[in-house]
Amino acid sequence: MLAVKALTFDVFGTVVDWRRSVAREAAAALAPKGYALDWNGFALAWRARYQPAMERVRSGGRGFVKLDVLHRENLLDVLEGFGVAGLSEGEIDDLNRAWHRLDPWPDVLPGMARLRAKFPLAALSNGNVALIVNMARRAGIRWDAILGAEVARAYKPMAEAYLSAADMLGLAPADVALVAAHNDDLKAAAAAGLRTIFIPRRTEMADAGQTKDLEAWEGADLAAEDFEDLADRLGCA
Amino acid sequence: MLAVKALTFDVFGTVVDWRRSVAREAAAALAPKGYALDWNGFALAWRARYQPAMERVRSGGRGFVKLDVLHRENLLDVLEGFGVAGLSEGEIDDLNRAWHRLDPWPDVLPGMARLRAKFPLAALSNGNVALIVNMARRAGIRWDAILGAEVARAYKPMAEAYLSAADMLGLAPADVALVAAHNDDLKAAAAAGLRTIFIPRRTEMADAGQTKDLEAWEGADLAAEDFEDLADRLGCA
Repeated sequence: MLAVKALTFDVFGTVVDWRRSVAREAAAALAPKGYALDWNGFALAWRARYQPAMERVRSGGRGFVKLDVLHRENLLDVLEGFGVAGLSEGEIDDLNRAWHRLDPWPDVLPGMARLRAKFPLAALSNGNVALIVNMARRAGIRWDAILGAEVARAYKPMAEAYLSAADMLGLAPADVALVAAHNDDLKAAAAAGLRTIFIPRRTEMADAGQTKDLEAWEGADLAAEDFEDLADRLGCA
Repeated sequence: MLAVKALTFDVFGTVVDWRRSVAREAAAALAPKGYALDWNGFALAWRARYQPAMERVRSGGRGFVKLDVLHRENLLDVLEGFGVAGLSEGEIDDLNRAWHRLDPWPDVLPGMARLRAKFPLAALSNGNVALIVNMARRAGIRWDAILGAEVARAYKPMAEAYLSAADMLGLAPADVALVAAHNDDLKAAAAAGLRTIFIPRRTEMADAGQTKDLEAWEGADLAAEDFEDLADRLGCA
C-alpha cells in the first residue's frame, strides 16, 4: 500500500466537473438575456485560455496575479468571441465566479469523507483561496488546508507549487501524494519529489470521445477509478 | 449588527487554551522521566519567549521561519532553564508539537458550527499551517481556510498578516473581522482596516488574577462573552 502522510488534490477536473458546471452557469447568466450559445463550447473556450494566461505568469512576463483575475480577463475575450455585449461589470464579476460554483463528481464527497478520516486533505490547485473556499462551502467539500498557487505564489506545474504545499503540511515531499486526473500534473509533482495518484475523469473534456488522460501515466505510484476506489486502496474504512 | 462577510480568528488563547494544554503535554512527556516541575510555569516560560522570537523575524533580524521552528528553539531554552536534560531529538520534536495538541475552550465548537453556517471562518494565527491543521483535526475544529503568518510570511501584528488574509478571502479589509481575546491584536487589525471583535478569555494567563485583556478595547467594533454569544450577536441560528 502507498505509504504517505497527507493527500493533496488537483481540483479543476479532478474534484469538480468544471465543464458542465461552467456551461450551466453561462447559460443561467446569458440565456435570460436572449443568447442561445453553444454553452459547452463556451466553457471549453474559456478553459482553453487558462494555460496560456498562467504561462505569462510562470514565464515571468507578469507578476503573480490570482486566478480570479486571469479568469476575468479570459472571460472578456470569450464573451467577445461569442458575440456577447452589454454586460455590466457586476454581471461579468458574477459570471466570472462561475468557477466558484463548480459541482464535485459524484464519488468526491463520500470518498473524501473516508479519506479524511485517515489523511489530512489539502487542495493543491491553481485556483485562488477564495475560489476554493467558496466552492467548498457550496459543495460541502471539507479541506484541512487550501494550499497551491496563491499560497505558493507559483502556478503548477512549477515545482514551487508542489514543494510549498508539502512544506506547509510540515512533511517531506515523498510523504505527500498528489491526486490528479491529469498526467502532466502528476509528472511535475513527481519531479518535485511527491508521490502521485491518478484518477481518470473520462468525461472531463467531452461527454464522449475524450482522448487524453484516460489512463495513468506508467510512472504513477497508484491509480484508482475514483475517490471511493482510492479510499479502498488506501485502506480507509 | 456588525456587517462583515467573513470572520478570522486569533487562535492561541482565543480558540484554544494553550496554557493548560501545554502544561498537560509537558507533564505527560516529562513526569514519566522523573521530573516534577511547575508545569504551569513551564507553559508560561515557553510562551514568554514567543513574542521576542517573532520580533527577531518581524524586525528583519532573520528571514521568515515558521512558528514550529521558533517554538523548538524556545523549548531548548526552557528545558535548560528547568534543568531538563537528556531528551532525544525525537522526544524534543514530539514535545514541541504540544502546540499542535491544544484544546479549544468549551464554547468554541458549538459556537463555530453556528458561525460557520453564516460566515466563512479562517484561522488568522501566527501558528504555521501544519500546526493549525493538526490542532483542528484533533479538536474537531472546521476552518474554511488557514491563513495568517506562514501564508503571509509575516507575523502579526504586522499589517501584512491581516491584509493578506483579507486579500486571500477575496474581500476588502473592512468586510473582514478579526475575533481575538487580545486587544493589541485587534488594534493592529483595525489599523490595517479590518473590523474587530473582542472575546475575553479571563483565565488564559492564570487560573485567577489575570490582569490584561479582561475587557474590550474601546475601539472594538463588537464584544461578546464567548463564541456562542458571538453567534447570537451576529444573528446566527
